[in-house]
Amino acid sequence: MTNGNSIDLTRRVVAELIGTALLVATVVGSGIMGERLSAGNLAIALLANTLATGAVLVALILAFGSISGAHLNPAVTLGVAFQAGLPWREVPNYIFGQIVGGFVGVAVANVMFGERPFFASQHSRHGAGQLFSEFIATFGLLLVIWCCSRSRSDAVPFAVGAYITAAYWFTSSTSFANPAVTLARAASDTFAGIRPQDVPGFIAAQLTGTVAASLLFRWFSPQLISHSHQARSPQLEGTAEGD
Amino acid sequence: MTNGNSIDLTRRVVAELIGTALLVATVVGSGIMGERLSAGNLAIALLANTLATGAVLVALILAFGSISGAHLNPAVTLGVAFQAGLPWREVPNYIFGQIVGGFVGVAVANVMFGERPFFASQHSRHGAGQLFSEFIATFGLLLVIWCCSRSRSDAVPFAVGAYITAAYWFTSSTSFANPAVTLARAASDTFAGIRPQDVPGFIAAQLTGTVAASLLFRWFSPQLISHSHQARSPQLEGTAEGD
Amino acid sequence: MTNGNSIDLTRRVVAELIGTALLVATVVGSGIMGERLSAGNLAIALLANTLATGAVLVALILAFGSISGAHLNPAVTLGVAFQAGLPWREVPNYIFGQIVGGFVGVAVANVMFGERPFFASQHSRHGAGQLFSEFIATFGLLLVIWCCSRSRSDAVPFAVGAYITAAYWFTSSTSFANPAVTLARAASDTFAGIRPQDVPGFIAAQLTGTVAASLLFRWFSPQLISHSHQARSPQLEGTAEGD
Amino acid sequence: MTNGNSIDLTRRVVAELIGTALLVATVVGSGIMGERLSAGNLAIALLANTLATGAVLVALILAFGSISGAHLNPAVTLGVAFQAGLPWREVPNYIFGQIVGGFVGVAVANVMFGERPFFASQHSRHGAGQLFSEFIATFGLLLVIWCCSRSRSDAVPFAVGAYITAAYWFTSSTSFANPAVTLARAASDTFAGIRPQDVPGFIAAQLTGTVAASLLFRWFSPQLISHSHQARSPQLEGTAEGD
Repeated sequence: MTNGNSIDLTRRVVAELIGTALLVATVVGSGIMGERLSAGNLAIALLANTLATGAVLVALILAFGSISGAHLNPAVTLGVAFQAGLPWREVPNYIFGQIVGGFVGVAVANVMFGERPFFASQHSRHGAGQLFSEFIATFGLLLVIWCCSRSRSDAVPFAVGAYITAAYWFTSSTSFANPAVTLARAASDTFAGIRPQDVPGFIAAQLTGTVAASLLFRWFSPQLISHSHQARSPQLEGTAEGD
Repeated sequence: MTNGNSIDLTRRVVAELIGTALLVATVVGSGIMGERLSAGNLAIALLANTLATGAVLVALILAFGSISGAHLNPAVTLGVAFQAGLPWREVPNYIFGQIVGGFVGVAVANVMFGERPFFASQHSRHGAGQLFSEFIATFGLLLVIWCCSRSRSDAVPFAVGAYITAAYWFTSSTSFANPAVTLARAASDTFAGIRPQDVPGFIAAQLTGTVAASLLFRWFSPQLISHSHQARSPQLEGTAEGD
Repeated sequence: MTNGNSIDLTRRVVAELIGTALLVATVVGSGIMGERLSAGNLAIALLANTLATGAVLVALILAFGSISGAHLNPAVTLGVAFQAGLPWREVPNYIFGQIVGGFVGVAVANVMFGERPFFASQHSRHGAGQLFSEFIATFGLLLVIWCCSRSRSDAVPFAVGAYITAAYWFTSSTSFANPAVTLARAASDTFAGIRPQDVPGFIAAQLTGTVAASLLFRWFSPQLISHSHQARSPQLEGTAEGD
Repeated sequence: MTNGNSIDLTRRVVAELIGTALLVATVVGSGIMGERLSAGNLAIALLANTLATGAVLVALILAFGSISGAHLNPAVTLGVAFQAGLPWREVPNYIFGQIVGGFVGVAVANVMFGERPFFASQHSRHGAGQLFSEFIATFGLLLVIWCCSRSRSDAVPFAVGAYITAAYWFTSSTSFANPAVTLARAASDTFAGIRPQDVPGFIAAQLTGTVAASLLFRWFSPQLISHSHQARSPQLEGTAEGD
């Protein structure tokens, strides 16, 4: 596998931008399609939304993993930096690419379905259960990424796609688990939309989950870390010359 | 692949606990979500429940396989010990972690969906057909794990996820096939709940299936066992210093 | 990967029997479950039936591939013998195991769902379109198995599961594509049942598809066959001492 | 993996023809089946159509990848030639095989379901949103193929199947993303049909997406191209003696 180290930061950030755009276009677009076709049965709409999101994650992480690490998610980027998998000075570039990509993706989805590029969501989502859901969803996502990266790095794309497929259903929030996606979803008043005022709470919960997973993995890691060089996952690549 | 042997028992038990918690949270949580959204169509609710459970098994076994073996199931732990893949003295620790994890998972799911952490299920499930189903489901699960472990250990996470996806539909009980999950499901009066008084019969059927699969695999094994060291599956790892 | 050659014929035939039993139990059982839960929506029942069948094929071929080759299908066994992958004198044993396994599987499914072990199907299926469908379904299945076996033998379980998932929907017969399964389905008057008098036509169409795929693969094979030894698929294994 | 280079052009073109025929038979056939069974719920019909198409792509690319590269799509063939993965003089043969295969596939599907082999679609599909959708769908498809081919060539069948699964839902056109398939779908007045007069616009959008993805990949490629020889994907194989 090509190591990401030889690829310059600009190209890696563009890969994060395009990857996140395709991810958000899928989340939002498949939500619109699902809602339009399912004649009011929300379970069928969410099944379609789930299938599309889980599948596109497999495709995108396989495609962009060896370029940028295919984080596509500021929580992943922060966690990777915390594990020394990316220099901290590159973190803002990654997160900037992901946030811009998220808004590009939502605009692409809205336009494909004949809507304005951006229009604020009115979809209210709140409550302690949903905040707790985002904590759990992000905690589980990062734990799966790190544990799988360590010993089965080739399988990370499948582990992430499978985890998110499950998480859409086992949480009451439907698992955004990604601050850039959460932010972008505020800009589409459709099935996947999130009311702007509900966004900050979800992002706080996601970052708390990131910290919790990082600490737990550190506790596991004294005995695990020694294998990290020969088994770096796509999601832990993207480390550049600063390593 | 990192062999589990270098990881201490405490960390392996914690991995079993967290893995089983995420598994049960998925089984129970996706059941609640499926039932709430599917407007009374039980087939759609079960499809969502199936998709989530099969997917999370892939993710969890990929993630925790190299730490604890990712048994996540007392029937698997007993079977592995029977095949000399885990010292018998560690079996109680594993099963303790799985049972605690199961109750943590059910509480997490209940709370995410705004319910009390624990409330006894009223969902009656019984009859010879369902008991026979649990025997068949567990028998098939262990056979798939052992045969696949022997020659395709890297594919065990996919084999288990695929098998359970099928078993949710081909048995009349919807295949719990896991004593820790069966026990924990008694503590949620939701879609996936099992009435407490129905639990012992199912666990007895599951253990009978475990014994049957173990004996059959032993009959196969004289010619198969020779390859077991270079092809130990995630589910057969977790063997510690007592090996 | 363990080569099947060292495993005696009895154990290989038992593996075919158990594997085919679990396959047929899935086809019939998930059909019953799907029909009972889907409130008359046949598309949802068939989706469940498809998901279960495709998934169980992945699990069973991963599990039994290195024991018997995991043919689980007389058409595959005949085709493999035709390609010199199994001695002709073992073909009757394999087919016997598959047919017995099919009837064991249908009885298991019927009993799990509280029905008598065997009861003749009244489900009429006929017409030129359905016969042509069985020809196409079997032709495509064997072509996929052989071409994939040649260069990607590790991926055969996934290719077969994926192909059958598609074939349930792209043919008007829902693709039995397997004489042992077709025969067994006559013994369950449920969703997956086939009226006994419709069975012979389907089996004839399946065998015609087998011959057509064999001839086409032979035409491809002069340039392909040279790699067959280092890349034998699970489905082409099972070759014994007579090789 | 067997390199495609040793296989003569005729056999590779026949592989493209049969592969594309099976692909189109799946797209059209599963659309008919889905519409007939789903009692008017278009979301369920499209779920079935998606599941079948994504799955058959995995099976077909695994099967034919090492023979012809399994392009099954003129946009892919043009893109591969542009990246010097196929001599330009072979491009017409490939595209001829794909277009003939597309019409064979639509006839097979129509006949399996008791329709005439060819009958023009009346299914109107148009508008800027759908044209933009075809641009995005093809752009994303080619980007996924090339990036994945470079470092994870063994995973290309899964990446393509997963991407198309998502793209059926995230675009308003349901992602034909393939000129040969688009053309063939004009010859079936069923669920998957496309009115003939709508075809040229979609093909133009697909080719524009092909060019955009090619240019972007070239920008990525100065640092990526060096690994292309030891990691050629099935989709980039098929290169013959003219290399």
